Amino acid sequence: MAVGLGRSLDYKLIAGIRLAAVKSKIRYPDKLDLVLIELTENASVSGVYTQNTFCAAPVALAKAHTQNSIPRYFLINTGNANAGTGESGKVSALRCCQKIADLAGVSVQEVLPFSTGVIGEHLPVKKILAAAPTVFADLSESSWVEAAEGILTTDTRPKLVSVQLEIGGKQVSITGIAKGSGMIKPNMATMLSFIFTDADIESTVLDEFLHDAVEKSFNRITVDGDTSTNDCCMLVATGKSDVSINKLSTHDYCQFKAALESLFITLATELIKDAEGASKFITITVASGASSLECRRVAYSIAESPLVKTALFAEDPNWGRILAAVGRSGLENLDLQSITIDLGSVRIVSGGGVDPSYLEEMGQVAMQKDEIIISVSLNRGNFSESVWTSDLSHEYISINSDYRT
Amino acid sequence: MAVGLGRSLDYKLIAGIRLAAVKSKIRYPDKLDLVLIELTENASVSGVYTQNTFCAAPVALAKAHTQNSIPRYFLINTGNANAGTGESGKVSALRCCQKIADLAGVSVQEVLPFSTGVIGEHLPVKKILAAAPTVFADLSESSWVEAAEGILTTDTRPKLVSVQLEIGGKQVSITGIAKGSGMIKPNMATMLSFIFTDADIESTVLDEFLHDAVEKSFNRITVDGDTSTNDCCMLVATGKSDVSINKLSTHDYCQFKAALESLFITLATELIKDAEGASKFITITVASGASSLECRRVAYSIAESPLVKTALFAEDPNWGRILAAVGRSGLENLDLQSITIDLGSVRIVSGGGVDPSYLEEMGQVAMQKDEIIISVSLNRGNFSESVWTSDLSHEYISINSDYRT
Repeated sequence: MAVGLGRSLDYKLIAGIRLAAVKSKIRYPDKLDLVLIELTENASVSGVYTQNTFCAAPVALAKAHTQNSIPRYFLINTGNANAGTGESGKVSALRCCQKIADLAGVSVQEVLPFSTGVIGEHLPVKKILAAAPTVFADLSESSWVEAAEGILTTDTRPKLVSVQLEIGGKQVSITGIAKGSGMIKPNMATMLSFIFTDADIESTVLDEFLHDAVEKSFNRITVDGDTSTNDCCMLVATGKSDVSINKLSTHDYCQFKAALESLFITLATELIKDAEGASKFITITVASGASSLECRRVAYSIAESPLVKTALFAEDPNWGRILAAVGRSGLENLDLQSITIDLGSVRIVSGGGVDPSYLEEMGQVAMQKDEIIISVSLNRGNFSESVWTSDLSHEYISINSDYRT
Repeated sequence: MAVGLGRSLDYKLIAGIRLAAVKSKIRYPDKLDLVLIELTENASVSGVYTQNTFCAAPVALAKAHTQNSIPRYFLINTGNANAGTGESGKVSALRCCQKIADLAGVSVQEVLPFSTGVIGEHLPVKKILAAAPTVFADLSESSWVEAAEGILTTDTRPKLVSVQLEIGGKQVSITGIAKGSGMIKPNMATMLSFIFTDADIESTVLDEFLHDAVEKSFNRITVDGDTSTNDCCMLVATGKSDVSINKLSTHDYCQFKAALESLFITLATELIKDAEGASKFITITVASGASSLECRRVAYSIAESPLVKTALFAEDPNWGRILAAVGRSGLENLDLQSITIDLGSVRIVSGGGVDPSYLEEMGQVAMQKDEIIISVSLNRGNFSESVWTSDLSHEYISINSDYRT
């Protein structure tokens, strides 16, 4: 299941980036499962990683490798997360990186490993080593769709998004891919996402761009409240467009930032539309809060309520469950009387109970849509936040009870 | 679905308590749905209530009524929660209380209302008023099974538990009933539970007993993380056994407290065994923590992970999901290397990864049991906590997508 038909896979090439994807049989016999991405020399690279204490071996290694070197290669496998594998997991990831380093004539620190899939099984190193020469030989500027497909696990469709903008009369492109449809509540990063631009951006500015964009996108989605061990989001600027983005040129900076954040939000919401078992795409907006934090607490309390999510799956306007989720979010001195809750354009709650104008049929119609907006107004401040989530369906249970079999 | 066959419904009468249950057609044509419990004059009564900000009308009224009066009657209906119903909800609850007060010749403040069922629909007051004379006339000392059945909603079986102990050569009895199988993460109280003893206990001591017992039982269970709007737990001491429990007689006090807490834990775990869609009863024990709080955080992070819960449903020893849940619980400076995780008697995680002795077959056998213990040792302190939960099954989705239809 997934919401809507998915986006077209139109995309812009990024000068300075080459990609390849091959079938290395890590878990399934006939799936693109090993992706290599080559970055031009001296690209700026910024990354954010999962805050799960048990971060996977490749995450630990990627963080270590970026301390002293500028990355030249991202090596990404699906089918195996190489998480919960202790010291031997790090050795396995390092061996795969070394193989690519040998083929490319770079140091092992210039190769960053990324893995996604089942936790707790040993990485099939031999299969990856055997496929490495092919994936290296296949590198091309145009293999974006293959790369977007090659990083998927339970996702039903690839996520590949581009934007192009004109800065100082020159074209600048941004293209990103992402994957992830379960164990999704990113905390500083999503399952896996790689975004590239041909703009020239120095590292500290790139770090800020990434932090701000993630905070508005991947850090505002939840499928099941489970933060993965392998979340990574990488932003790369190759500088090949000859357009430099810096804080001195305020207009260009803002224009680029807006385009970048829009692309991040598109990728993040694409993950939710293709969430495990998703039949609905839900936007939860909490407005007029006393702080961003309290808006987020209410929004996540709704977004992570199994009862709200099953009601959404059933297209049942059981708004009492939304009310209960707001009530249990732990906000101090919340005044029931002044809170309103809307389902799309239908006001359902006001004055501490059901709105006098509300009719069950109106709620029913609002719930039958594929994309639903739940709006809560706390009426006690000027902050607002939005969180995106999916419903909870039989298919989610099937996917997650069958995943390893 | 439910775990095991359920307990026998043996119980002890409590002198000073009379009960009745009738079919008033609140939601279904042929279900016991209205329960009246009469307390002897001058019983001690203690109560804890939901911390959901949007507490239901009957909860607000029950709290208000206990401020200045000693309760004589509990009036409990299922099929309708009378929550999210604003001021008119309070008026409805008050009218029902008044009817019982008129029949009994007591003041309206001596009647406490309790409701459970669908949130956001108006209480069918007329049906309750019509059934009131019958339920009042039917009061008897022996209608415990009927009362235990009459408070159920999606529960598949009644929960009725008794203990008897001898204090100073005299018999003391404690008998309790409870209901609740979804929207269960009580916070200071469970969905609905009523516990009675014939001991003589003054109010302040009774409050302490209730607080401590709830903290070890109903406040340690979760089905879906959703704290209800209607949770209430009432403890009543009728004093009819002529046995007085007070802090001066330390031995009797401790003996009674232990018996009471054991009964609370039995009722709470019975709720979990009959949780919506439950096929497994899971005990999560987190030991050797630096504080009770951090043990609870880890335990709830596991207990509320949809991925852990679907793996339990599938009998899949996908321990990586348990590891990930520990890792995302937000504990500072957690040392991976020293943590151990056991599934029953099988050590699965040590030294930051899978235990060297672990074999998939051992995990499989452990997962096939109806009752499973997940033990985590943090190895950094002397605190431990246990939380009880259920798995997440197709039936949970079915129940919660069909509930109102």
